[in-house]
Amino acid sequence: MHTDLVAALDIGGTKIAGALVDGHGRILLRAQRATPAREPGDTVMDAVADVLTELAASPLWRGVRAVGIGSAGPVDASTGSVSPVNIPGWRAYPLVERVRAATGGLPVELIGDGVAITAAEHWQGAARGHDNALCMVVSTGVGGGLVLGGRLHPGPTGNAGHIGHISVDLDGDPCPCGSRGCVERIASGPNIARRALEGGWRPGPDGDTSAAAVAAAARDGHPVAVASFERAARALAAGIAATATLVEIDIAVIGGGVGKAGDVLFTPLRAALAEYATLSFVQRLTVAPALMGTDAGLVGAAAAALTTTPPQPNARAAGV
Amino acid sequence: MHTDLVAALDIGGTKIAGALVDGHGRILLRAQRATPAREPGDTVMDAVADVLTELAASPLWRGVRAVGIGSAGPVDASTGSVSPVNIPGWRAYPLVERVRAATGGLPVELIGDGVAITAAEHWQGAARGHDNALCMVVSTGVGGGLVLGGRLHPGPTGNAGHIGHISVDLDGDPCPCGSRGCVERIASGPNIARRALEGGWRPGPDGDTSAAAVAAAARDGHPVAVASFERAARALAAGIAATATLVEIDIAVIGGGVGKAGDVLFTPLRAALAEYATLSFVQRLTVAPALMGTDAGLVGAAAAALTTTPPQPNARAAGV
Repeated sequence: MHTDLVAALDIGGTKIAGALVDGHGRILLRAQRATPAREPGDTVMDAVADVLTELAASPLWRGVRAVGIGSAGPVDASTGSVSPVNIPGWRAYPLVERVRAATGGLPVELIGDGVAITAAEHWQGAARGHDNALCMVVSTGVGGGLVLGGRLHPGPTGNAGHIGHISVDLDGDPCPCGSRGCVERIASGPNIARRALEGGWRPGPDGDTSAAAVAAAARDGHPVAVASFERAARALAAGIAATATLVEIDIAVIGGGVGKAGDVLFTPLRAALAEYATLSFVQRLTVAPALMGTDAGLVGAAAAALTTTPPQPNARAAGV
Repeated sequence: MHTDLVAALDIGGTKIAGALVDGHGRILLRAQRATPAREPGDTVMDAVADVLTELAASPLWRGVRAVGIGSAGPVDASTGSVSPVNIPGWRAYPLVERVRAATGGLPVELIGDGVAITAAEHWQGAARGHDNALCMVVSTGVGGGLVLGGRLHPGPTGNAGHIGHISVDLDGDPCPCGSRGCVERIASGPNIARRALEGGWRPGPDGDTSAAAVAAAARDGHPVAVASFERAARALAAGIAATATLVEIDIAVIGGGVGKAGDVLFTPLRAALAEYATLSFVQRLTVAPALMGTDAGLVGAAAAALTTTPPQPNARAAGV
């Protein structure tokens, strides 16, 4: 029997993924449900409970010593509650208490999804071996998390590293969050696509107006597409440089759909970083693409549970 | 004899201050020299050694167990060297080694001056009791430091919290640091004064064009002076909100000459903070004026030495 085994939950607006993960970060069993994101909160919780029940049906469950949750934010680890923007039925929803009850009293660790992918990249991905790192997801939104002094830095409420909503343009466009000129407002996939369309770029016969389509156009040299990625790169660079200047990170890892754009993003990003990261102690800062795939949220949630709950010599035997 | 006593050095471009500080943060003895800032590095070091020699002439010196240094930055705590912008003779200057040699081998702790004032405000000032805080000096420049999870966060090189050089206006005016739209470029005293003069504000008969004079004009309702402080407040708010969003601070403490402007600064600052600090987990963020006076650098350097070097039951007896 595995003596260092945890359950992990990755909760987003589209799906609720669950897994049993061992002390090496290996996923031994999976379960998944679509998120009933527009339903009442208890219906969403039923989907979470279904995932846990499916995992608990395995004989492996007897070895599970804790549950790690990475959830769409904002979360509040100090109260164990979540209020994901894309799950309106959950507002200050007591997720930790409910998951604890659904698992017969297992310790439950809650972190934001940006913090979870950071835990994964630090454990097994591009930030491995770096004591001070920023890991980001640049996709429909822009999220992130921090490793400081060799350890995950979730902050008191589990939301630290929220780089998508720092303003890098104090007079800039209003952001849905209420602020202005946020990194996400400039660098997210939908904003890259919007800017390209506004500049006169048009999609091909397939009608694909995603950031991935803009990236393809940029690789073909379409100047408006190139410019839209350059603008996103500039905002990301200003945000990454700000983070490094504030907390002395030495690497920024970028994942998510936009992060997969490759040189179209990373070449202007590295150039812009040299412009914004000027002080001596941040000049060695590097950027790298994320290495963890779609399991990053699960692996990171598991990492948080493994790190913060001490191993128990006699693993619990109760089921869900 | 005091059993918990350290020597503190506060090194800036104008003066080199030294003190013996006890475990309660009381300054028992002081020494000071002007900084020969334009002289060769060894001449600057001679002034530091003079300060230490003066302190070591006291019988109290026998109880000193460590030396804390807060230095104008950038510093590099990882190598024990400093390269203060305003002391050109010191570039990667091995200050820790020289101070250790000058004190007969005492342990030496080096931090940046922004980190030092943060240590002081956290120990005895406006950030006392706050586990997550940003402390700033807004003056000729804008510096700062961080307390995270109840402890000073100097970062690997001792420069963390450098909020003056994060960009809040990615297309903004070039900053002497090489970047653009830095908080310091908008909110420092000289920039507040410059903007007021450019807008048509004129000094009184005394010819005083300092930010303090602009603050006095703003208190009298001069619209250009008011607007210049509002702009500074906006940049500070964007920087503070960014810091809170990244690392979850709950208080920002503002000291330095500009911090003394009072309501002329703090009223628009609080209003702007509500605009930029929008996510749920940063909405309780407050700002407060610094409480420590001009001794903050010395007290903070002492705090760093007291915290990082263990007390020795038998205090050293050797002199300088």
